Amino acid sequence: MIGRLNHVAIAVPDLEAATATYRDTLGAKVSPPQEEPDHGVTVVFIELPNTKIELLEPLGENSPIQAFLDRSPSGGIHHVCYEVDDIISARDRLKEQGARVLGNGEPKVGAHGKPVLFLHPKDFNGTLVELEQA
Amino acid sequence: MIGRLNHVAIAVPDLEAATATYRDTLGAKVSPPQEEPDHGVTVVFIELPNTKIELLEPLGENSPIQAFLDRSPSGGIHHVCYEVDDIISARDRLKEQGARVLGNGEPKVGAHGKPVLFLHPKDFNGTLVELEQA
Repeated sequence: MIGRLNHVAIAVPDLEAATATYRDTLGAKVSPPQEEPDHGVTVVFIELPNTKIELLEPLGENSPIQAFLDRSPSGGIHHVCYEVDDIISARDRLKEQGARVLGNGEPKVGAHGKPVLFLHPKDFNGTLVELEQA
Repeated sequence: MIGRLNHVAIAVPDLEAATATYRDTLGAKVSPPQEEPDHGVTVVFIELPNTKIELLEPLGENSPIQAFLDRSPSGGIHHVCYEVDDIISARDRLKEQGARVLGNGEPKVGAHGKPVLFLHPKDFNGTLVELEQA
C-alpha cells in the first residue's frame, strides 16, 4: 500500500539556523521558507535527489509542533510521510485493521496541496506517520 | 555535499510486531531480519520505491539503541542516513566547520558493507545523522 517516502519532517526551534546548517555545513539545496498558517508551521524544504527533508518551525499560537519542541528543545525528527495512491481507501483499510487516524479522520490539504492524514504514533512503533495522496 | 537519503532508521522494542505492522497494516515490502552483531542491532529493511526504512531492534549487551528505547519504550525515529561521495572529505569538511563526529572519528563498515560515520545530534537540530559512502 505505501509507496514513496515523500519526506522526513524535522522540527527545529530556529529555522534560520537550521537552514544554514543544511545549506552551508551539509551542502544541501534548500528552498526559501514558506509559511503554512493552516498547519501552524513555517517550512523549508531540503531537496535531496530521491526525497525531501522538511524543516518545521512553529508559526502562530497553538502550533502542532510546539509541544514536541517543549519536550525536545533542540529539535528532532518529527514524522515520516509515505505516499499512497488513494488516501480514502488507505484510511479505510487502516481503520479496519485497528489503526487510529488523528483528528476527525477526514483528509486535510497538506503543504504540497494534496490530501493528507496523520496516524497515531502508538500504532506505528512510536512514529508519527503522515500519509499523502500521490 | 549530501546526496540521497539512504534510509530512515526506526528503533523498535519488538521487531516481529513492527515487521507485521509494516507488512500487513501498511502493505510494504519487508526483508527478512538480519543480525548485525558488530552494531548491536537486528535490522529489517522496508523497501520503498525511492529509499528504505530500517527497523532496528537491540541485539546483545550494550546495544547502541537500548538507551533510546529506555527513554522511548514504544520506539521512535532514531536517525537519518545521507549518502556522500567521499566520506573522508565529507568528515574533514564537517570537522572544519565545527561539527562533531561520534566515536573516534574513523568510519566503520555499516549495515550495507560501506563506510559510515555518525554526527552529533546537538550539531544537527537534535537529529542523529549518519553519513554513508555512496
